[in-house]
Amino acid sequence: MATYKYFLVDTPTPYVAHVQINRPQKMNAFMEEMWLELKLVFDTLSHSPDIRAIILSGAGDRAFTSGLDVQAASQVRYPGADAARKATSIRRHVQEFQDCIGSIEVCEKPVICVMHGISFGLAIDICTAADIRICSADVKMAVKEVDIGLAADIGTLSRLPRVVGSYSWVKDVCLSARIFGAEEAYRVGLVSHVQENKAAALDKALEMAKTLAEKSPIAVQGTKELLNHGRDHKLADSLRYTGVWNSVGIQTTDVERAMMSGLKKTRPRFEKL
Amino acid sequence: MATYKYFLVDTPTPYVAHVQINRPQKMNAFMEEMWLELKLVFDTLSHSPDIRAIILSGAGDRAFTSGLDVQAASQVRYPGADAARKATSIRRHVQEFQDCIGSIEVCEKPVICVMHGISFGLAIDICTAADIRICSADVKMAVKEVDIGLAADIGTLSRLPRVVGSYSWVKDVCLSARIFGAEEAYRVGLVSHVQENKAAALDKALEMAKTLAEKSPIAVQGTKELLNHGRDHKLADSLRYTGVWNSVGIQTTDVERAMMSGLKKTRPRFEKL
Amino acid sequence: MATYKYFLVDTPTPYVAHVQINRPQKMNAFMEEMWLELKLVFDTLSHSPDIRAIILSGAGDRAFTSGLDVQAASQVRYPGADAARKATSIRRHVQEFQDCIGSIEVCEKPVICVMHGISFGLAIDICTAADIRICSADVKMAVKEVDIGLAADIGTLSRLPRVVGSYSWVKDVCLSARIFGAEEAYRVGLVSHVQENKAAALDKALEMAKTLAEKSPIAVQGTKELLNHGRDHKLADSLRYTGVWNSVGIQTTDVERAMMSGLKKTRPRFEKL
Amino acid sequence: MATYKYFLVDTPTPYVAHVQINRPQKMNAFMEEMWLELKLVFDTLSHSPDIRAIILSGAGDRAFTSGLDVQAASQVRYPGADAARKATSIRRHVQEFQDCIGSIEVCEKPVICVMHGISFGLAIDICTAADIRICSADVKMAVKEVDIGLAADIGTLSRLPRVVGSYSWVKDVCLSARIFGAEEAYRVGLVSHVQENKAAALDKALEMAKTLAEKSPIAVQGTKELLNHGRDHKLADSLRYTGVWNSVGIQTTDVERAMMSGLKKTRPRFEKL
Amino acid sequence: MATYKYFLVDTPTPYVAHVQINRPQKMNAFMEEMWLELKLVFDTLSHSPDIRAIILSGAGDRAFTSGLDVQAASQVRYPGADAARKATSIRRHVQEFQDCIGSIEVCEKPVICVMHGISFGLAIDICTAADIRICSADVKMAVKEVDIGLAADIGTLSRLPRVVGSYSWVKDVCLSARIFGAEEAYRVGLVSHVQENKAAALDKALEMAKTLAEKSPIAVQGTKELLNHGRDHKLADSLRYTGVWNSVGIQTTDVERAMMSGLKKTRPRFEKL
Amino acid sequence: MATYKYFLVDTPTPYVAHVQINRPQKMNAFMEEMWLELKLVFDTLSHSPDIRAIILSGAGDRAFTSGLDVQAASQVRYPGADAARKATSIRRHVQEFQDCIGSIEVCEKPVICVMHGISFGLAIDICTAADIRICSADVKMAVKEVDIGLAADIGTLSRLPRVVGSYSWVKDVCLSARIFGAEEAYRVGLVSHVQENKAAALDKALEMAKTLAEKSPIAVQGTKELLNHGRDHKLADSLRYTGVWNSVGIQTTDVERAMMSGLKKTRPRFEKL
Repeated sequence: MATYKYFLVDTPTPYVAHVQINRPQKMNAFMEEMWLELKLVFDTLSHSPDIRAIILSGAGDRAFTSGLDVQAASQVRYPGADAARKATSIRRHVQEFQDCIGSIEVCEKPVICVMHGISFGLAIDICTAADIRICSADVKMAVKEVDIGLAADIGTLSRLPRVVGSYSWVKDVCLSARIFGAEEAYRVGLVSHVQENKAAALDKALEMAKTLAEKSPIAVQGTKELLNHGRDHKLADSLRYTGVWNSVGIQTTDVERAMMSGLKKTRPRFEKL
Repeated sequence: MATYKYFLVDTPTPYVAHVQINRPQKMNAFMEEMWLELKLVFDTLSHSPDIRAIILSGAGDRAFTSGLDVQAASQVRYPGADAARKATSIRRHVQEFQDCIGSIEVCEKPVICVMHGISFGLAIDICTAADIRICSADVKMAVKEVDIGLAADIGTLSRLPRVVGSYSWVKDVCLSARIFGAEEAYRVGLVSHVQENKAAALDKALEMAKTLAEKSPIAVQGTKELLNHGRDHKLADSLRYTGVWNSVGIQTTDVERAMMSGLKKTRPRFEKL
Repeated sequence: MATYKYFLVDTPTPYVAHVQINRPQKMNAFMEEMWLELKLVFDTLSHSPDIRAIILSGAGDRAFTSGLDVQAASQVRYPGADAARKATSIRRHVQEFQDCIGSIEVCEKPVICVMHGISFGLAIDICTAADIRICSADVKMAVKEVDIGLAADIGTLSRLPRVVGSYSWVKDVCLSARIFGAEEAYRVGLVSHVQENKAAALDKALEMAKTLAEKSPIAVQGTKELLNHGRDHKLADSLRYTGVWNSVGIQTTDVERAMMSGLKKTRPRFEKL
Repeated sequence: MATYKYFLVDTPTPYVAHVQINRPQKMNAFMEEMWLELKLVFDTLSHSPDIRAIILSGAGDRAFTSGLDVQAASQVRYPGADAARKATSIRRHVQEFQDCIGSIEVCEKPVICVMHGISFGLAIDICTAADIRICSADVKMAVKEVDIGLAADIGTLSRLPRVVGSYSWVKDVCLSARIFGAEEAYRVGLVSHVQENKAAALDKALEMAKTLAEKSPIAVQGTKELLNHGRDHKLADSLRYTGVWNSVGIQTTDVERAMMSGLKKTRPRFEKL
Repeated sequence: MATYKYFLVDTPTPYVAHVQINRPQKMNAFMEEMWLELKLVFDTLSHSPDIRAIILSGAGDRAFTSGLDVQAASQVRYPGADAARKATSIRRHVQEFQDCIGSIEVCEKPVICVMHGISFGLAIDICTAADIRICSADVKMAVKEVDIGLAADIGTLSRLPRVVGSYSWVKDVCLSARIFGAEEAYRVGLVSHVQENKAAALDKALEMAKTLAEKSPIAVQGTKELLNHGRDHKLADSLRYTGVWNSVGIQTTDVERAMMSGLKKTRPRFEKL
Repeated sequence: MATYKYFLVDTPTPYVAHVQINRPQKMNAFMEEMWLELKLVFDTLSHSPDIRAIILSGAGDRAFTSGLDVQAASQVRYPGADAARKATSIRRHVQEFQDCIGSIEVCEKPVICVMHGISFGLAIDICTAADIRICSADVKMAVKEVDIGLAADIGTLSRLPRVVGSYSWVKDVCLSARIFGAEEAYRVGLVSHVQENKAAALDKALEMAKTLAEKSPIAVQGTKELLNHGRDHKLADSLRYTGVWNSVGIQTTDVERAMMSGLKKTRPRFEKL
């Protein structure tokens, strides 16, 4: 595994990568250099044949991430001689920022996000770009952007409603910026599991990641792609795309191996992907 | 505040408007004149710089609204020499009616709907056009249109599935026209809070509206707009629109004031919008 | 009622059809001949003026359906001299298969699916194409396809997220292929009701079907069509389509009969459709 | 016919309205008051049973319209305490302006636009919202907005590519703001006919309008609606909407009358619409 | 080749089918039985490995087709006890009719339509569902439906604007129902070639069909599919679908054979598809 | 200006960049290294404040580009243990290739493409990603991919129909892979101008580029963005996006400067962007 400045990446078990946001002394708050590196991490894992599932968590006890490093953010000056020119700088900046966080979603491998402690603002942008979310009982979440005078623009307002399915609860937390906890996150379906503490949440994530890593990577990665495609397309388009996707997906040797293993009660081995 | 024939509009606290459907002797049932006026109310509040959050409720003890005034509706005759010409009259009528109820959604300010007692038919069209819903424990809701031989056409079939997120429950209540109560509405996410009675529900709404009214109006109104836009667009389109929106939204002085107040633990003051 | 090779179809009560998948000795597992017949059944019921609601269940005690008959499936060979030509055969096959299962959704009448026992793989494709789902307490469900090396391609990945509303839970069960039960299916909204056993679930379904069959078929079938249309379209398009649909729907005599019956407390009789 | 401040509206022949932009001393340049009135004119004609086709032209010899009244426009000040608040004022203003010009497209009756002389800027927004365009040989057209530092925002950039079909020529004239004449407009398909002068162009328009006015209004207005709908929708959606539209359209008595007249070689008479 | 009641189908040259509408004594006018058979013809050719290109023409000297057999059409009675029930019958009928004509577009092989003489109404629905159009100099075309009191509903209003690209000319001919000839059809791009008479047009079509039949069928059929998909999707979706399509298309042996033949100046032979 | 391995980039006149594909000894045929560099060139120019318009041409006399370097392409081997795994490699490869060519379209500045001599295959992908096309009289163009057994997958099938507007001509040239010349390209609207030779075409492009470079860059770049957005969106979405875009675009100082210069007949100077 490559080493990174702001992220710890290791392989706790074969085919599983664990990515930790690693700036615990600052509650894992993000600066531009960090989100650029985040994209590098996920783009690399996306194409690595040795990885089939990814866990994303925050180092330290206090926070998954407190969000944007407000001090760093407050010193950014967008160049431009008038409001329209400033807008061009900002638009480029926001788009690059969105692309970096979006690399989690674009990553071909399933990503399990483990949240604990403070998980504000950018924490929600990040976790909603992942596929599955687990949290510890002590998590404190908030779509915090309204409280700094901003509509959230790095993905939360676009992805959160699709993750939980309902606009009703989403409008409540996004308009008010109020803090909510593990129980509420579980009730609305934002997280799949609540564990008593961070260690237990990581254990749960590892168990899930191992399960995914033992399956056919053609099947798992196809499922992620087709679910992401379906989210943004009409039913008929989703079905048509699925048919084309599987017209070659079904030609994998994994199908035969999986079926055989099912009959013989053995564990199948799948070629690298 | 202007005065209206069928609506009471006042300002219980700065920047908050309270709109009451005011035909309690008829259980707040709606006639054409009323929905035209409803649009007038919300169009006015939408652009008023003195309003930052809106509460919508029904006057009297018995009903938020019993829906369409069936007696009045049964006397409507659509002109037209044949079925195709009648269809033109009906289409114009339905579209105007949809536009009136849609004014709640189009309104730039967040709208909190407080429901109590009988809340049938048009009540659901109206509340799903609002942003947040609160109800009292005694509420009786129903998508009642099937029982008068009609598919609901003023917004319920389009908006309700997006509000609660799931087509499963929606099909059940829309096809059967059955009555459901506060607990069920809360469980599926149609309402955010259930209070013991109408007064408590109004208090809760007022508390929420005050919170919203104290935030940056640029941030709050941008959040409403971006969530509504995102509901109807693909992820990539939603992110692109968000980037353009915030390319000028971020240039507000609210960001600096909000950040400063956060550091100084003071309450920020935001310019009118 | 016509007779079929793999399906039992009868009319337990006026205007209600009960369709049973009838291969209980093989746990109602599906072969190509069966899904072609399934389409024939639903296309026929869709246009039958004597049917206004449909119940779909699986014969026998053990399974709604165990999904694809894996033995039969493992003997299919897709013709084609190279991978691209094989892909053409597969694409045609998948599309035909999707169309057959999709006939449940396209069917103009509401379909209530009753699930019990083993309900794996294709069981989920089938039930998500129905309008309402009921299950017995002993049901065992799984999006099983990943375990045979496949991304599910007959509709589950496209429809399941829309049925339950949330991508969060959907990704969990689709990526892991894990088994889940009645309680979880109810909690996420996949099923509307859980009954203690299959018999009770069928009773519940029959009761619901009778209710639907007593309503105006113009109203009920319009509601199904408009909800299905709205699921795949933007709000504005959904409202526009609704207006055109009801421009003639409202011209039915059912409206007057339903209103009259409401006033007179009698049961309305509606013309065939 | 009602009288208007900035528009002359008369009925040169039964069922045909002629609308003239009537500020010739200022080359028919537009101020806000004028586009608000334009909407009033077209909304009224849209629902008038006495009108089946509309001609839109500019009074005087020199110009269809020179576009925005730049002097008036240069005095507009958008209120707002910062760039974000100013943006809100501008957005409301642009949207209202778009809606006014869009009333030509939304108008249920076909609109034939006759262009002569100077036809700059807003002239293109207006004519592309019409259904058919005719011009005189002396016409001078330009998408002029870039020359005043603006991207055109009242409809040209959205509608012109759909009218002429090709982005290639559109980008050339929109980016360069260059003037083009009748021959080029005809070659790319922006106008359907070129006549030697304004009088001849008006005669041609009148002849076309009379033809349209003699047809079944159900058929003509349905055709306009379905073409406009189809422009913005996928093929499958367009066909589905068409089926619903004609499910009542075909029930008109016009079909029988038109068929009969065809056989008997008589001129059919159609009921008002 | 199978034999049909209303169509002559033969194979003038290897891999090329020629389909003739064969009711010349009635100017090839269509009744329901005919369009059902048309679908049968094209569905069969679509999957036949012996066919790589299709020519569609009309038997006899006078007409490609005069359109709907008006006499037969005038005797159709749509069942239904009220306008809404009649609408259901009509909607089903229109949808089936659309599906039949749409079989030309859905056909996996390219279809070249040769038009001569009278080509009214349904003739335009049919030819716009084909891929390439050739006509003789004597052709008389019209979107004739408005003249029988109808908005065209079998595909013309949806497909014609996409075929010619421009809504400007389309609105002219669809609203007025006027007749236009070969020269105009060529100028707006509705037809690719005009030949002096029917025989020459057929020769030209045969020459084109032979060219297409000699190419890689993987490449040709993929090109048709991707162009049809692209017409209905956003650019980004079209590119994504293309990538998935070619991820297996490129694995064909045709690529190597075609490249080799290009280098060796020999004619490649491609496997059946 | 930076120097590149395969591209010559200079600034013939202020604010105008000229990019030449510079591998004339191989007819400017492309290898992977080249399209990666192409993206680098256009990404750099897109954000350079010193560039407001770009010309793209091919070095040498014989070809704009002959397309893919077939020799290099024939040696590419896609890794993967089975057809499904190979498909993953291919999909990643095609997507990266599409992104590189797409950088021309994504580039914020208008791009004028000058074509001469051989312009096959990839030449069409490239030129359709540009904004304006000019060619010399001797140009030979072809959508050549079918002749190497492939459906074109780098953009032609997605963009060419939108550039020329009509699917009719597009299907002809894409299915047949036939060569067409300058006159035909001009007639269908693929190129805006034909010049007698390459030098004259470059002169014409330079003249156009200078004109664009003298305009407000806020207006020109906004126009490109809004036209590209409008191509992929419904009319209503396009108008809404336009309103948000111009809500800050109109706040530029360019508007005042452009208006002033118009009145004073001076040449305006615009700030860098």
